[in-house]
Amino acid sequence: MHIRPPMHDAGHAESAATGATDRMIKTTAELADGREIVYFDSVQRNREPHDERDLAAVATGSEIRLDPILDEWVAVAGHRQTRTFLPSTQECPLCPTRPGGYRSEIPTGDYEVVVFENRFPSFAVDVADVPPTVDPADTPGADLHQRRRGVGRCEVVCFTSDHNSAFSRLERDRVRLVVDVWVDRTVALSEHPEIEQVYCFENRGEAIGVTLHHPHGQIYGYPFVTPRTRQMLTSARRHRERTGRNLFADVLAAEVAADTRIVARTDLWTAFVPASARWPVEVHLYPNRQVPDLASLTDAERDDLAAVYLDILRRCDGLYDNPLPYIASWQQAPVRVDRDLAYLHLQLTSIQRAPAKLKYLAGSESGMGVFINDVFPEDVAARLRAVR
Amino acid sequence: MHIRPPMHDAGHAESAATGATDRMIKTTAELADGREIVYFDSVQRNREPHDERDLAAVATGSEIRLDPILDEWVAVAGHRQTRTFLPSTQECPLCPTRPGGYRSEIPTGDYEVVVFENRFPSFAVDVADVPPTVDPADTPGADLHQRRRGVGRCEVVCFTSDHNSAFSRLERDRVRLVVDVWVDRTVALSEHPEIEQVYCFENRGEAIGVTLHHPHGQIYGYPFVTPRTRQMLTSARRHRERTGRNLFADVLAAEVAADTRIVARTDLWTAFVPASARWPVEVHLYPNRQVPDLASLTDAERDDLAAVYLDILRRCDGLYDNPLPYIASWQQAPVRVDRDLAYLHLQLTSIQRAPAKLKYLAGSESGMGVFINDVFPEDVAARLRAVR
Repeated sequence: MHIRPPMHDAGHAESAATGATDRMIKTTAELADGREIVYFDSVQRNREPHDERDLAAVATGSEIRLDPILDEWVAVAGHRQTRTFLPSTQECPLCPTRPGGYRSEIPTGDYEVVVFENRFPSFAVDVADVPPTVDPADTPGADLHQRRRGVGRCEVVCFTSDHNSAFSRLERDRVRLVVDVWVDRTVALSEHPEIEQVYCFENRGEAIGVTLHHPHGQIYGYPFVTPRTRQMLTSARRHRERTGRNLFADVLAAEVAADTRIVARTDLWTAFVPASARWPVEVHLYPNRQVPDLASLTDAERDDLAAVYLDILRRCDGLYDNPLPYIASWQQAPVRVDRDLAYLHLQLTSIQRAPAKLKYLAGSESGMGVFINDVFPEDVAARLRAVR
Repeated sequence: MHIRPPMHDAGHAESAATGATDRMIKTTAELADGREIVYFDSVQRNREPHDERDLAAVATGSEIRLDPILDEWVAVAGHRQTRTFLPSTQECPLCPTRPGGYRSEIPTGDYEVVVFENRFPSFAVDVADVPPTVDPADTPGADLHQRRRGVGRCEVVCFTSDHNSAFSRLERDRVRLVVDVWVDRTVALSEHPEIEQVYCFENRGEAIGVTLHHPHGQIYGYPFVTPRTRQMLTSARRHRERTGRNLFADVLAAEVAADTRIVARTDLWTAFVPASARWPVEVHLYPNRQVPDLASLTDAERDDLAAVYLDILRRCDGLYDNPLPYIASWQQAPVRVDRDLAYLHLQLTSIQRAPAKLKYLAGSESGMGVFINDVFPEDVAARLRAVR
């Protein structure tokens, strides 16, 4: 299902973003069950092969329900219980389909970066109607139990066709292409009238529940402004009313002035461990200039992002003997509101608190929202800076 | 360190709670490093033995730091990194100290229910001063990086001296005693002028990071109203302004009217899977009468709680072939504010989404606060009701 009219006419497409001048070749096609797949290439390649699988369309029954007590939408997606779970390397759905080999989600024999709709999405554009009610119709308090269709979008982004690679081991040019892909998807998903926020992220490592090892990330288009973003914007609004300034810019300036938690800094980007880090490893990466989202970055900022992000990931992987499990999450402004209050940044967090110990969200974090961090942010920053 | 004058004169102590008439014998003593230990017994026993260990006092260096972006306090407790981690059964710190055996945290040869201060606390009454600053003194934005001493209290509650038991396998009388202990600690910790919220909880199962297998729970006294409670009270305040009614009471009434998600119900208590459950297993347990905290429960409500809670835990353990890992968290009113808005209830959640599959908090939950539940709450309720 296309989020906007398909662009089957592959060719040089100007990046939709403001100020971006890079060029990439974008080819849109369809998988056997009607899902969209988009190839992003740095040079012209044959993206003709069709998906030959006999794949039944998946009925997406996602719905969202309002929790009246925490005032947050929760997605219920029952069809996801059967999703692919740690398949063998021979049956990786994210590897290219090689002649005579396993027919994966990607019909071509190779790719650079490819994006396709998740077969087990939490949100989808063509989601089924919510059954009128699960509760008796005239139940008092039915207004407390609001339910809506889970309209939105869930995409998978494969960063490389090399199953055994990792984001931290990509070439810099490839990372630059991934940045352009994030921009493309942010712009594309933002055009859907019911999508209110676009979220690019990567879950990495079995320790945090990754079910596919092939290097990949995800992109969600949510039908609401997310709870965490709402919370950040509430603080930012209050700060602006009190000081006239942007909260995130002030936090960044304070970290730069303090200097003790800076991990990396260039003319265009700054990475630091926040003073109030919640996780044993936590790095925030800000452009030095306030922008609402990835699409607002200049060409130079995107180039530099590729270099700085790779540097940070390699430092993270150098902390312990093993690659760091992490969640990398791009905090972008909502599509339609508060874009002047927001400030694009990346939050990279890890539960690895020692070589063989994980931080769990137990009673205090889960039940009360109070994070206990066993590691001083200043120490983590020093250790990250020391990685060669 | 005593939270209030020690009661070395063991004897029948009237439960401090309002309306409670049960009697238990409470004996307060000190561990070798000065920490407080309190025995709770149903009949008079010898609680004389002293802690013979040569135990250095632990310097508690906890501090809390304000995250200015999410407007939440985060605790940093660096001394906890060395805490006891999955010790052998022979060296369980929560077993009684048997003659000639391992000297545990409990000097007596047996106990019914015992509470003591955590040796590796996230908060403590006698916490060290926060170093004046980790950042240069005249750093701009220093007001954004607020820091305070981590004043508070972290207690461990051992439910039974039987290492291999579980809360779900306790006798009903023992559970009743545990309820009285929760009440006692809630009252005791509430008396400390800097403690603003008391939290009784149990983490159960290695899957959620429990580092000691001996059946035990914890009690935290926080020096602030926790983020989750603030969020709930904000919704409750808005609901009262709009309707004049209590939000939690209305949610409970709506669940009772809908009936589809009820797990257990008596004259005094109701357990249900919330319509907007975030976790694959989630049960909320409310008294049918609005009270702010455990101490406000009547004797009859406490008796019935013991029976209903055991019933729920046994149903949870019957869902899969293995005992369910869970977090059981008592949501109590803050000590000093909004006690009329709050409504005591228990939230029991589990990450076990299938016999061999866990739900992880990945990108959507961790980065955006959007929970994706793969299981319909109505189905979970039906499965819990079906457990015999």
